[in-house]
Amino acid sequence: MKKGHQVTMKEIAKKLGVSVSTISRALKDSPELHPETKRKIVEMAKEMNYQPNLLAQSLRISRTKTLGVIVPEITSHFFASCISGIQDQATTRGYNIMICQSNEHLELEIANIKTLVSSQVDALLISLSRETNHYEHLFELYNREIPFVLFDRVQEDIPVSKVTFNDVGGAYQVTKHLLEVGCKRVMYVSGPEDLYISKKRKEGYLKALSEFGVAEDPSLIKITDLTTEGNMAVAKEILQMDNRPDGVFCMIDPVAVEVMMHWKSQGIRIPQDIALAGFTNNPAAAVVEPPLTTVLQPGYEMGKLAVSHLLDQLDGIASDDPISIVLETTLIPRKSTEISH
Amino acid sequence: MKKGHQVTMKEIAKKLGVSVSTISRALKDSPELHPETKRKIVEMAKEMNYQPNLLAQSLRISRTKTLGVIVPEITSHFFASCISGIQDQATTRGYNIMICQSNEHLELEIANIKTLVSSQVDALLISLSRETNHYEHLFELYNREIPFVLFDRVQEDIPVSKVTFNDVGGAYQVTKHLLEVGCKRVMYVSGPEDLYISKKRKEGYLKALSEFGVAEDPSLIKITDLTTEGNMAVAKEILQMDNRPDGVFCMIDPVAVEVMMHWKSQGIRIPQDIALAGFTNNPAAAVVEPPLTTVLQPGYEMGKLAVSHLLDQLDGIASDDPISIVLETTLIPRKSTEISH
Repeated sequence: MKKGHQVTMKEIAKKLGVSVSTISRALKDSPELHPETKRKIVEMAKEMNYQPNLLAQSLRISRTKTLGVIVPEITSHFFASCISGIQDQATTRGYNIMICQSNEHLELEIANIKTLVSSQVDALLISLSRETNHYEHLFELYNREIPFVLFDRVQEDIPVSKVTFNDVGGAYQVTKHLLEVGCKRVMYVSGPEDLYISKKRKEGYLKALSEFGVAEDPSLIKITDLTTEGNMAVAKEILQMDNRPDGVFCMIDPVAVEVMMHWKSQGIRIPQDIALAGFTNNPAAAVVEPPLTTVLQPGYEMGKLAVSHLLDQLDGIASDDPISIVLETTLIPRKSTEISH
Repeated sequence: MKKGHQVTMKEIAKKLGVSVSTISRALKDSPELHPETKRKIVEMAKEMNYQPNLLAQSLRISRTKTLGVIVPEITSHFFASCISGIQDQATTRGYNIMICQSNEHLELEIANIKTLVSSQVDALLISLSRETNHYEHLFELYNREIPFVLFDRVQEDIPVSKVTFNDVGGAYQVTKHLLEVGCKRVMYVSGPEDLYISKKRKEGYLKALSEFGVAEDPSLIKITDLTTEGNMAVAKEILQMDNRPDGVFCMIDPVAVEVMMHWKSQGIRIPQDIALAGFTNNPAAAVVEPPLTTVLQPGYEMGKLAVSHLLDQLDGIASDDPISIVLETTLIPRKSTEISH
């Protein structure tokens, strides 16, 4: 063992082949465990020179009844909905929340964690920034035994609970819908390829194509950087194609809405010339003309569930072992894909 | 003086007829003040048994470089824009921010203040909840000498700096525009009458009418509680009027968008049958059909200005004396009021 290294419950758990929550319960002398199990664990903890993390302990004992929340951006309707769900559920359980925004920057995400931890929040709910490609700050939180859960933008290797959407399923639903209303050439307009949701939604798109016996056509996948300029460039490129798609699924609603605005200005009829669908169910989707077919992502529910699970862990109602909660999405068909034959 | 009462700088300032910032500078022995002025102030402070607030002092000395922000609701695009401006400017000046949401409840607003103050934020930016009708919690902050500014939803009697919009001016602009495009019967659809913006925007509406020699007609002012149900009820009522308005100005964009959706479903042509305008410039306003005439309220700029001024006060660059910063709004004419004659 390297010098100065502080042994964690995780390491004891690994050594004994039991769960972290079992270790935790043994060290708390929980009556739920068999005395022999407890004895073994306590001995191993002594042998490995385990010292309970004092900061984590003091946090657990003198609770501030405050949760920290970190989201990539608050101006996004989706994350704002998550926050509403988090707040409503936290309030119900007697907690207040403090929210920080990473603005999609890794550096700010790290600073946010420091700020919230030094404010002595009892636990954290984190959705990762677009830039986050290394995870030392999260492993450090984990090693300091500060409880947290990841939601929506998660990283699979971090051993904490995660709440996500079935992105594959949602993209499958909307692509299948476009094929069912009669589209023969369905395009996927993706965000940056390394984004988690870009990949997952592509997976769902390809799954639906394959189920309908449609071969993947690389010319029918376009990438936007999700800026207005990027979206407009894609909208124009599509109109210039020799063999245009007759149905387009955009990865998120804001892209679909900007594409729609451009096409309308060019006299393209939606859905007669090209059917169009998005994903998220932003407020704009329902009020554009024609109203946009989309996939409902219940952000409010996600926020509520994430808080419930985190507080259940904090209160010892749920096990400390990480779980994965996956929320289903719902297709909302609207006029932008209502093709009459 | 009542027992246990802690004398504030404000009281010394009142007694001597000078500003709070003069007192503050004198007690910090600032070289900017005349020695005689300083002597008088220091003597009065001693006589009144002034004891500098230790908490406030320690906050000022050991800064956390964190600002607390309280907004009524994060899901509002407008407040989300304010937060973006606050964050960008705070980051530029080396501060992080923690955000709390009151959900329009006074009780939660008070809890938010407690949470942020015990997290030792250096200062606060607060926009009041719809419910806030007494202000002890804000006067307490002031008396504890914890710096804060109010923005958008402000209360005039609290002696701190305020950043607001020229609501009267914006409502005047949009009403004048409706009259100029030829509307004869212009209606104002207001939110709850006790809301600050309801009053201010009515003032601007009436100012434009009076300037155009149009008499105020009580049947041309309708009230909605700003819920979807309330907005729909108003949309229906207007269509049932014997003498319908030919131009309608809704206090905020979401009301105008919901009214538009209902009218379109009833075959009403906008602007030919009734011209329609909103206020705020929400993203939906630009993408509905016809695009909605509105008034741009630069929330991002408001946030930046509020932080700049607060940090200038904190750093002693700006005087501690409260000022009022008023931002102008800009009319954005779109097709929903484009009447061709």
